[in-house]
Amino acid sequence: MINFKVRLCKWAGLHSNKEATPAFLSLRGNVETGCSVQTRRDPILYRMMMIYLLIAVVCVSVHPVQALDNGLALTPTMGWLHWERFMCNIDCNMDPQNCIREELYMQMADVMVKEGWLEAGYEYVCIDDCWPHHQRDAQGRLQADPKRFPSGIKKLADYVHSRGLKLGIYADVGSMTCGGYPGSLGYYETDAKTFAEWGVDLLKFDGCYMNWTMLGEGYKNMSRALNQTGRSIVYSCEWPLYEWPFHEPNYTAIRETCNHWRNFADVYDSWSSVKTILDWTATNQKILTPAAGPGGWNDPDMLVIGNFGLSHSQQQSQMALWAIMAAPLLMSNDLRDICPKSKELLQNRRIIGISQDPLGKQGYRTGTVDSFEMWERPLSGARLALAILNRQEIGGPRGFPLTLATLPSWQYCNPRCNVTQILPTYQELGVQALFSKQILKINPSGTALLTVTQIQDYSGKGY
Amino acid sequence: MINFKVRLCKWAGLHSNKEATPAFLSLRGNVETGCSVQTRRDPILYRMMMIYLLIAVVCVSVHPVQALDNGLALTPTMGWLHWERFMCNIDCNMDPQNCIREELYMQMADVMVKEGWLEAGYEYVCIDDCWPHHQRDAQGRLQADPKRFPSGIKKLADYVHSRGLKLGIYADVGSMTCGGYPGSLGYYETDAKTFAEWGVDLLKFDGCYMNWTMLGEGYKNMSRALNQTGRSIVYSCEWPLYEWPFHEPNYTAIRETCNHWRNFADVYDSWSSVKTILDWTATNQKILTPAAGPGGWNDPDMLVIGNFGLSHSQQQSQMALWAIMAAPLLMSNDLRDICPKSKELLQNRRIIGISQDPLGKQGYRTGTVDSFEMWERPLSGARLALAILNRQEIGGPRGFPLTLATLPSWQYCNPRCNVTQILPTYQELGVQALFSKQILKINPSGTALLTVTQIQDYSGKGY
Repeated sequence: MINFKVRLCKWAGLHSNKEATPAFLSLRGNVETGCSVQTRRDPILYRMMMIYLLIAVVCVSVHPVQALDNGLALTPTMGWLHWERFMCNIDCNMDPQNCIREELYMQMADVMVKEGWLEAGYEYVCIDDCWPHHQRDAQGRLQADPKRFPSGIKKLADYVHSRGLKLGIYADVGSMTCGGYPGSLGYYETDAKTFAEWGVDLLKFDGCYMNWTMLGEGYKNMSRALNQTGRSIVYSCEWPLYEWPFHEPNYTAIRETCNHWRNFADVYDSWSSVKTILDWTATNQKILTPAAGPGGWNDPDMLVIGNFGLSHSQQQSQMALWAIMAAPLLMSNDLRDICPKSKELLQNRRIIGISQDPLGKQGYRTGTVDSFEMWERPLSGARLALAILNRQEIGGPRGFPLTLATLPSWQYCNPRCNVTQILPTYQELGVQALFSKQILKINPSGTALLTVTQIQDYSGKGY
Repeated sequence: MINFKVRLCKWAGLHSNKEATPAFLSLRGNVETGCSVQTRRDPILYRMMMIYLLIAVVCVSVHPVQALDNGLALTPTMGWLHWERFMCNIDCNMDPQNCIREELYMQMADVMVKEGWLEAGYEYVCIDDCWPHHQRDAQGRLQADPKRFPSGIKKLADYVHSRGLKLGIYADVGSMTCGGYPGSLGYYETDAKTFAEWGVDLLKFDGCYMNWTMLGEGYKNMSRALNQTGRSIVYSCEWPLYEWPFHEPNYTAIRETCNHWRNFADVYDSWSSVKTILDWTATNQKILTPAAGPGGWNDPDMLVIGNFGLSHSQQQSQMALWAIMAAPLLMSNDLRDICPKSKELLQNRRIIGISQDPLGKQGYRTGTVDSFEMWERPLSGARLALAILNRQEIGGPRGFPLTLATLPSWQYCNPRCNVTQILPTYQELGVQALFSKQILKINPSGTALLTVTQIQDYSGKGY
């Protein structure tokens, strides 16, 4: 499947400062005049819009951006992945409730259906490292640890499928997994075939124990091998993560190969970790953001909401920013025992709506003012998502003065927009004129998440 | 008032590793044999105990450690202080509910009485910086900002006293406060007299805008000035905080001068900040711990429990470790709007009991094993408080195998102790033999807090 990224020829890409003006927004204002405000029925503006629209259509035709051709992950993958919360806990004698064994995934699948997770969109139940036996079988095939997975992965997949869910599994492009289990190097076709036969729906393919110069070839070969099975298997890579220490990864190739890809360090159960990921992503957004789109996504790692290291404000921030970043929403927590507030946040339909927006454009940081970080994400239906993160970690809630005219995408709301606040609490802020001011109260390390919808005129078209 | 610190002549002080063995515990075992376990009726042990007891009594007689002679802070001060949560917010037009004005302290006083805070022990309502007018009056006296404190501080003190609470105020040893308000340099006697006349019960005396070589003289002079007023005013210093960048402070002099003293950076509303304070304190515990005792305490800064930056596990950790450190419990939060779980934690009588233990010995870190940090604090009544902090910020709750024989103070529980778990949840663990094993489940960034009570024999004496 070929996906197209709308790119205006004139647009030089995203910026990490307040000047970022995404192309599709520039259509709705006079990009030459910078800060000047256009009136509703400006005929010059209208003519310019038509010219830019023409340019845009031409650009779309000549600049196709190819995603992995498997028809999957048209929106960011949603599900549950065991790693951050359960790690490589294989001591089922001491800790039977939390060790890596088939019951864990069966219980999680049961809860996902019963407690509304599937209904909210969380579909994939994903096994991470430490599931295999230390030896391949006589035919060279991977096999699950027989004590911890006595029924085998195929039966587990059947169980998960019977609940209307999908099963994810984990392997490694190199000679061993990070946890020291058998790697897939030399076995790509065998392993892809095994996973397909088992009925696996997603493969997280790690990059340990592999010479970095062979990463590209390895990830591409496994991609082809998965494709050749004929089964729809979401392909989650860690290729760029392992390549960044040596050189800037080729994101065109990565997007052609993988459905999502980890770029940066593992997430931990701490606000420091979440902040480090956000900062790294923003610093590199010129490189990362253009690579994302339907079929292929940057993966900033798991949601750790519902665990032990984030305050509720910080949990709201992770949820909001992961939605803005068009990140896979792979929770790593214990769904059997999660507090109601975390559950409500993870199942918030409005935030999930931003995450899963069909336009599939990744958001970006547009600037930082007075320790408030501003992020935005273009959405379908003439909408924008805005996130304002309070990075001042002292004091009480602070007021952020939201004035649409100060947004990098101000043209979009000329002369007005409808504004909905989603976090910290849902609130319709109503129609806001370009220069009207709304004070948003934002907790330290918390985030205000909003959607901004263009007001349509009588003919149904926005200005 | 003279306080005495029990110090065994032979004891070389506290250690930051697993070998730390406080003197009073060494009385209850054979310190020469290290890891060997004494039986209940070992006559050698009994004779050694008597010898050590004699030595201890002699040492007590010859090594008095003098605290500030004002009869105050015999246990660590408990109360509320505005800084971390409300800072220097003086914009009462924009933020009338949260700006620094008399209503804030009156409301906090009302809530402290109504919601059980006073009953739990939180007695001082403390003003921090930004309360004064920018000019002294014609007589050179400090005066409150007339717009924000129209009734004046004396009236506010009366209000606070009428609720059974005490009032704290803030000033600075140098030429200006940190926020740029008038400093007390050159006005120590005037300001001490003013505070006494107003009915102030505590002074937080900051150290901004002061040549560091003059800090000692300044803090001592204010101490004398306060004493000369004849009013009981708890004297909270920041002398060592401002001296550490230049040289190791003289804690004997500090203890003779102040009721508590800040050593290290301001606390922020984040787990990183709390950890940094804990690490600094543990690193310097050989210097800090001997200085603490009834009448004088190391102050690691405010409790930020009930705000926005700490998860519940992290809030439990701050509460537990502040109790272990015999720290003043000065909350900085909004008591008018605090979640029930944070309130319950801050009012937990068992934790407050550890904090306020009359023996008045500060606890210390005894070691780190497998990312578990172990802290202990000797308590009155042949008891010990233990805190085990899980510093691994990934994964689920981890099991810490508590075996009394592995404690630095194992001799104390020979042959058994009664163990009570206070955090994460209250649980009587009952009588534990020296080599019995209890698995404590501790959340990432969370803490298990326990008390260990020596089992008395039939004659009412411990072994």
